[in-house]
Amino acid sequence: MKYASSLFGAVVLVLVMACAPSATDTQSVAPVDPLPSWNDGDAKQEILDFVARVTDPASSEFVPEAERIATFDNDGTLWAEQPLYFQLFFAIDRVKAMAPQHPEWATQQPFKAVLEGDLEALGAGGKRGLLEMVMATHTGMTTDEFERIATEWLETTKHPTSGRPFTEMVYQPMLELLDYLRANGFKTFIVSAGGIEFMRPWTEAVYGIPPEQVVGSSIKTAFEIGDNGPVLRRLPEIGFIDDKAAKPVAINSHIGRRPIAAFGNSDGDFQMLEWTTAGSGARLGVLVHHTDGEREWAYDRESKIGHLDRGLDEAGARGWVVVSMKDDWRTIFPPEN
Amino acid sequence: MKYASSLFGAVVLVLVMACAPSATDTQSVAPVDPLPSWNDGDAKQEILDFVARVTDPASSEFVPEAERIATFDNDGTLWAEQPLYFQLFFAIDRVKAMAPQHPEWATQQPFKAVLEGDLEALGAGGKRGLLEMVMATHTGMTTDEFERIATEWLETTKHPTSGRPFTEMVYQPMLELLDYLRANGFKTFIVSAGGIEFMRPWTEAVYGIPPEQVVGSSIKTAFEIGDNGPVLRRLPEIGFIDDKAAKPVAINSHIGRRPIAAFGNSDGDFQMLEWTTAGSGARLGVLVHHTDGEREWAYDRESKIGHLDRGLDEAGARGWVVVSMKDDWRTIFPPEN
Repeated sequence: MKYASSLFGAVVLVLVMACAPSATDTQSVAPVDPLPSWNDGDAKQEILDFVARVTDPASSEFVPEAERIATFDNDGTLWAEQPLYFQLFFAIDRVKAMAPQHPEWATQQPFKAVLEGDLEALGAGGKRGLLEMVMATHTGMTTDEFERIATEWLETTKHPTSGRPFTEMVYQPMLELLDYLRANGFKTFIVSAGGIEFMRPWTEAVYGIPPEQVVGSSIKTAFEIGDNGPVLRRLPEIGFIDDKAAKPVAINSHIGRRPIAAFGNSDGDFQMLEWTTAGSGARLGVLVHHTDGEREWAYDRESKIGHLDRGLDEAGARGWVVVSMKDDWRTIFPPEN
Repeated sequence: MKYASSLFGAVVLVLVMACAPSATDTQSVAPVDPLPSWNDGDAKQEILDFVARVTDPASSEFVPEAERIATFDNDGTLWAEQPLYFQLFFAIDRVKAMAPQHPEWATQQPFKAVLEGDLEALGAGGKRGLLEMVMATHTGMTTDEFERIATEWLETTKHPTSGRPFTEMVYQPMLELLDYLRANGFKTFIVSAGGIEFMRPWTEAVYGIPPEQVVGSSIKTAFEIGDNGPVLRRLPEIGFIDDKAAKPVAINSHIGRRPIAAFGNSDGDFQMLEWTTAGSGARLGVLVHHTDGEREWAYDRESKIGHLDRGLDEAGARGWVVVSMKDDWRTIFPPEN
């Protein structure tokens, strides 16, 4: 991560201010742009203005630090989601890895489609087929075992078109935004339709968001006493699907406060932005619009993945900021490690 | 709250250390007891030793700050739970307040028992009767409305035997412990069988624990567009009962890390302590034992409320600390405001 933690930053700042021999010594420090990967323009300015208003104790829109909650969708908002949601690549690879133990999959959909590399047939199975694949590959093991499997996959697998690790397919402007908000006393949360336990192993290292601030879809787990002590077993039963109108429900359940800022990229985030911006006082709703077919992917109203239609229609009237990746972002992905 | 926030404390400490003209100036400062309401004894010493070990970078048992998660049961651990769980008093008062709109309750259990003040008949209805009462009084309204109702009740109602507000029926030694842990880099969570939305409105002011660090039992909610914009409606349907083996499940779901310290008082907390202390490295499991019939209440194996039986049997072998309220606590409740 580029920035140190906000606590460390605050301590250093206070130290500098308290111990400086004279105030004039600090006048020569040039102002640092907190969002260097954002082009100057309306989107960047609206974000900067919002943060300035809610953090200025003299402003009528000042928000105490404890209430500065910001929620972020993950797929398509913090990291890419093309040509498929990354968790689906994981599920597909798991089907292939587990196939020797499941000879019946050779003739059984959706597994047959996956094993034959027939993504069209997989898509034809719709949500039911995908759910079956997720259940077969994401449940049965303990939570500790699943974390090991997901972590190992992320460490060893590359994105099919860029050749980069999936955890480098994150958006540099959003990393800067997360740091900037935290440096201004915000608590940042992920609220994603992705699997909560697929995200938690790496969100702290990649985004600076600790596991307890990750909200997502989940399967049910059960507490069991195993041979080596207690475990949590992942059951083949949906716990919660954290999408659309369920996002405000999950925010209420996990966070217990209404965010003052929310960031998404698809109509799956509509209600999260609606709930967030309907609160009183200063509010910020932001939609990341995938407009850059050269540096990333361009898609919106017609796309199944990251479908964005109603959000584009209503953003203006609702006062939401629409970020054009092509125009507003100087850089898309972080430099290669 | 007695102590300033740990962030403020840390900043002050760093400032004092950084700006002190010479190191010898600080030698005359007397050591401050972080747990003044705890009598010196094994329980206090085991807690202090645990914190010293996990926070000392030179110790083999050092734990990075991000992993210093401590979970606390609420009823009987942070505040009292006699002569009834406080949330039941709330439900009973709500039945009485709502009775004029429900003439049918005059002849219908469990409402009839409540309206006639017949706690024995209420108890005879068992869990099913209590659940019916909770559903009738805790659901139907929006989350905002429920927060107002619960907050107003807590502000205007007194505990039946002490005459103090319920939020003053908290344990002074545990308030000190919460502050002490946070000052040592711990993140403190509540994991309670009580209603999550009954606790969240006041836990920050009383315990210093923000809403997003409160885990509890819940009913389901639904996102709706009302006349004045979006609301979350509380549905008459159980979401999650956060008790016994469900506590580790809820910890995994909400926190996503295993705590290194857990504090409870009943067999409802057994699995939370079991899950916590089964992790590798230094672990702390603490049971608060209600042994003080004069200053508080004395109960354990035979009590329906705060039933503690298996925990007492197995604490020794499992290395859990049993705190005797009578012997280990100098004070029980905070001074009256």
